[in-house]
Amino acid sequence: MTELPSWRDTATRSAIEDFVASVTAGTDAVPVAERVAVFDNDGTLWSEKPMPTQLHYVVEQWRKRLAEDASLAARQPYTAVASGDLSWVGAAVDKHYAGDDADLKVLIGAIVEVTQGVSVHDYAESVASFYRDARHLTLGVPYSRTVYQPMVELLRFLEANGFTCYVVSAGERDFMRPMTEEYYGLPPERVVGSAYGLTYDEDTRQVRYGAALSFFDDGPEKPPRIWTRIGRRPLFAVGNSNGDMPMLDFTADNGRGLALLVHHDDDTDRGDTPYDKGAEQALAAAADRGYTVISVKDDWEQVFPTAPASTRDA
Amino acid sequence: MTELPSWRDTATRSAIEDFVASVTAGTDAVPVAERVAVFDNDGTLWSEKPMPTQLHYVVEQWRKRLAEDASLAARQPYTAVASGDLSWVGAAVDKHYAGDDADLKVLIGAIVEVTQGVSVHDYAESVASFYRDARHLTLGVPYSRTVYQPMVELLRFLEANGFTCYVVSAGERDFMRPMTEEYYGLPPERVVGSAYGLTYDEDTRQVRYGAALSFFDDGPEKPPRIWTRIGRRPLFAVGNSNGDMPMLDFTADNGRGLALLVHHDDDTDRGDTPYDKGAEQALAAAADRGYTVISVKDDWEQVFPTAPASTRDA
Repeated sequence: MTELPSWRDTATRSAIEDFVASVTAGTDAVPVAERVAVFDNDGTLWSEKPMPTQLHYVVEQWRKRLAEDASLAARQPYTAVASGDLSWVGAAVDKHYAGDDADLKVLIGAIVEVTQGVSVHDYAESVASFYRDARHLTLGVPYSRTVYQPMVELLRFLEANGFTCYVVSAGERDFMRPMTEEYYGLPPERVVGSAYGLTYDEDTRQVRYGAALSFFDDGPEKPPRIWTRIGRRPLFAVGNSNGDMPMLDFTADNGRGLALLVHHDDDTDRGDTPYDKGAEQALAAAADRGYTVISVKDDWEQVFPTAPASTRDA
Repeated sequence: MTELPSWRDTATRSAIEDFVASVTAGTDAVPVAERVAVFDNDGTLWSEKPMPTQLHYVVEQWRKRLAEDASLAARQPYTAVASGDLSWVGAAVDKHYAGDDADLKVLIGAIVEVTQGVSVHDYAESVASFYRDARHLTLGVPYSRTVYQPMVELLRFLEANGFTCYVVSAGERDFMRPMTEEYYGLPPERVVGSAYGLTYDEDTRQVRYGAALSFFDDGPEKPPRIWTRIGRRPLFAVGNSNGDMPMLDFTADNGRGLALLVHHDDDTDRGDTPYDKGAEQALAAAADRGYTVISVKDDWEQVFPTAPASTRDA
């Protein structure tokens, strides 16, 4: 009986199950301490369309600021938010994946403004409140219901086999921490992501966000961040975009490592959007570089959880 | 029966035992996930005299370079190494604690040269080889025998009570990782320290050290690094110098947190050197800021382990 019930009985599921068996059984089993698995977040563990959840949160904060100061509408991204047409925001991210970072810098600058000077505790409360109230922009459900059920099962399957699982995402680390714990059962010390600079405020004895992004955890930044945080080379990695390729290569090259690439080819009515954008190079290189491709359409029986996700109760 | 046999039956030991009992028992016990303990390394978990072990390692690398290129002796720190008088090195660290970072920058520049371009794996092997062969400069024993036995017992005592222990040190993270695992039983993901910048080498699929220090994990940098790596405010902290004060304050201010300061007042013949240098402000502020002071002289029955330390076998 499979422990991956939302996965169809395909070659992909067999490849995962065979891999786990091969590194956990027998005299050449990989020691438990070295069974490190890393997962991209947006588009790998949960939906990233029509826009990453973090942008949804930030747009709400910009909207609150506009309500207090309408003159902000003179500049992006407030112009877009004021107009109700957010395509500028999505385009900035698309341009980043096409190699043009100009609008992304404006976007990140405005994102940093939202948290500048805020304590990590106050931000955690603001983020937790968002996750309680927000609804996915097209599916209309709480974000807890936009996690990929097959991937949550995969986390538990790996853990049951001695793996330690980490999120390694371009998403901002502290925005992810509340949801990774509640939706995936992954505690804050196992969340690696982009980071705002932090400073220690001696007077209040609080850690606060600074005026700039410290680093953007995507592409070739992912392996160094994995080393910084974990101090081991992963044995298992899953991503879904070009920005995950260095992490996948770093893992595939680890002797017995397995690298997986989620392909969003699902054109059925199960709620997720089919897309290749941002994953073209990764998909084209998959065979050469040894990535095992997960077809959302063919390999997953079910995409989203049927009940509100709480891995704590799972 | 105490689980801290190398600690004398003093008010300090009682304070630690009472604190642990108070946060682990009853209806207001702190949840296990929030029982985070942070330990400075040099001078807190092991000896840092006559010089921090990392400097010993680096001096050996400089000596190897000098043997290949004698012209290096024209500049510091090679001048000092060539002369056999390393007081310039110790003075650079002392000046740092007195607020003058000029020589420390020269020192760090020369330290960074040693690892620039080296892969994290090759460095780990070099460091592991050093730990196998090196002897403490005055005690003449392997560095495994220069850990503070009472502190190793404290790590195990906390773990037995549901705490997760981290090293949070100004020492370089990857230099500590091999010894924290072997001497303290703390895996690489629980080592927070200063860091060289890292880059991903696409061609060899290796993570390599860059041309600069990324950050120096001391003083007000410690609380942000704790947040970055752990994502929780500690409940328990131990340090021994002025540079640990922000970490101690950040912990003491955490509602029920306990902050401890090791005072090197031992003038007996147990092998450790008495010193206050670099700890003057912390010692003076201890009463006001609520630090519990650990007297090496009065609170510890034994300073170093009697047999080669291997926490794995303990």
